Amino acid sequence: MTNILKGIKAGNPKSIAIAITIIENDLKDKGHIVKNIFPKHTKTHRIGITGPPGAGKSSITNKLIEKYRAENKKVGVLLVDPSSPFTSGAVLGDRIRMNNFYNDSKVYIRSMASRGSSGGLTKNINQVANVLESAEFDVVIFETVGVGQIDLDVVNSVDSVLVVLVPESGDDIQIMKAGLIEIADIFIINKYDRKDADKLNLVLKNMLSLIDKSKHVPFIVKTIAIDDFGINKLVKQIENHLKYLIKNKLLMKKHNDRYINSIKNILYQEYEEEFWNDKRKKILVKNLDKNLKDRKTPYEIINKLKSI
Amino acid sequence: MTNILKGIKAGNPKSIAIAITIIENDLKDKGHIVKNIFPKHTKTHRIGITGPPGAGKSSITNKLIEKYRAENKKVGVLLVDPSSPFTSGAVLGDRIRMNNFYNDSKVYIRSMASRGSSGGLTKNINQVANVLESAEFDVVIFETVGVGQIDLDVVNSVDSVLVVLVPESGDDIQIMKAGLIEIADIFIINKYDRKDADKLNLVLKNMLSLIDKSKHVPFIVKTIAIDDFGINKLVKQIENHLKYLIKNKLLMKKHNDRYINSIKNILYQEYEEEFWNDKRKKILVKNLDKNLKDRKTPYEIINKLKSI
Repeated sequence: MTNILKGIKAGNPKSIAIAITIIENDLKDKGHIVKNIFPKHTKTHRIGITGPPGAGKSSITNKLIEKYRAENKKVGVLLVDPSSPFTSGAVLGDRIRMNNFYNDSKVYIRSMASRGSSGGLTKNINQVANVLESAEFDVVIFETVGVGQIDLDVVNSVDSVLVVLVPESGDDIQIMKAGLIEIADIFIINKYDRKDADKLNLVLKNMLSLIDKSKHVPFIVKTIAIDDFGINKLVKQIENHLKYLIKNKLLMKKHNDRYINSIKNILYQEYEEEFWNDKRKKILVKNLDKNLKDRKTPYEIINKLKSI
Repeated sequence: MTNILKGIKAGNPKSIAIAITIIENDLKDKGHIVKNIFPKHTKTHRIGITGPPGAGKSSITNKLIEKYRAENKKVGVLLVDPSSPFTSGAVLGDRIRMNNFYNDSKVYIRSMASRGSSGGLTKNINQVANVLESAEFDVVIFETVGVGQIDLDVVNSVDSVLVVLVPESGDDIQIMKAGLIEIADIFIINKYDRKDADKLNLVLKNMLSLIDKSKHVPFIVKTIAIDDFGINKLVKQIENHLKYLIKNKLLMKKHNDRYINSIKNILYQEYEEEFWNDKRKKILVKNLDKNLKDRKTPYEIINKLKSI
């Protein structure tokens, strides 16, 4: 274990991989790792990339890796898949291209399967990012298909959220209204050479014009990722957003929120382990075996559980 | 307080309204209500209705209220809005029609604002449903714009999930793949008189044919809600789904899961209140005031907090 912790700090990809596997699968040594890898001193910029399937998230991620590598930055990429039987094929296909970086020791790419819709990834995403922070990565990118819980877990674990759209997304404006506007720090209109790109740009601009000016208004960046069009500008805007966060003490706030959440999660886990001893579990199960109408209410059973 | 609890059990709309307000806003008496309204004996069918904006969720809900009222059932409707500055107007407009039921004492309709993307609604949705169950409603409908966290909270709090689509949703098939298939018990293709309705039906059927036959395969119901087309069939399929849940002991499993979650939520809330006394809070704040690099790790501070 001590070797793994040392390995993480030294940036050893094998140690990182083992640590993430342990965290992801809730293995026995998880507690030990989680407790010891919390980065005290972080310079890592955590970036989330989300958007509908087919928008080109992977192409954008690929280009960002290239740009950051050209600046000699260490880049970690975590691909968060919803564990759907329908998406996995296509998604993996997209991602094969990332193998370009296979021999680059300063690029770490890893797929993480989510645990369905139950939100079991919440704590994990942040903890996995902590592993890469401890290994002193300059940038950590979370790429996720924009779906429900997973999305929000990523949003809460990163500093800057990039939402990738395509000109065809214009029809989905209603959907966007309801969810993406609130989480985006930067909008990317990818595949900008396609029909209706300007139209989406306009629609988006109009929507953003409604946002209270005292808040951060998301940038819009036009890209054609596969042609490397707009990517330098994107890198610049990502940097600008980080500066904005620092200037307004929002980065510190994000760090503090994650710090407090880590404390609460560890505390709660310890509390749960302590509270649910065999005797208490038996009482709960016995109560669950009864018909609904004969059961104690949750409050009644808590009183009983606490009294022993 | 005793009056409110009595009022809920008697089905008094004012008592119900006060209780929900208290729960929604985390007011002082919340604990007292939550502890005392857990329904021991429930016959309530909890239904969730979700789908993209504009799909006609409110029209479907309206029609369902009508049908259930014709069977003399008591119906509660909870409209869960994402608190987005962009959607509120349109959504409220849609819902004015529900005023039809204003004078019907056996229909209770209520809007609930969500708390942004932070998931503050999670516990509340279940607790609010418990209020209506205690008031012996036969059906409780949660209507929600299909967005992230809110959606999942609703899914976890209901017995049957209805996903409403429109023929135009065919273009969003990729989005659907990633999220809606997993949560739907019944698919509704509404506005079925529109172009491409059959196409969406086919696409959906093909997707559903991939589902493991040992699991529940969602029904597809074709409707034109405003013309009352397909609604009787929908009511029938909702009933069939409930029968399926009962037959396979899945309804009992849902009740058990919600029961266990209620216990864990109450326990955790009590633990948090107990743990975070002023002395401990001060230590945390003092640590947060330090630079990142001078801070204790979460684990170190937990050890300190526990030692006092």
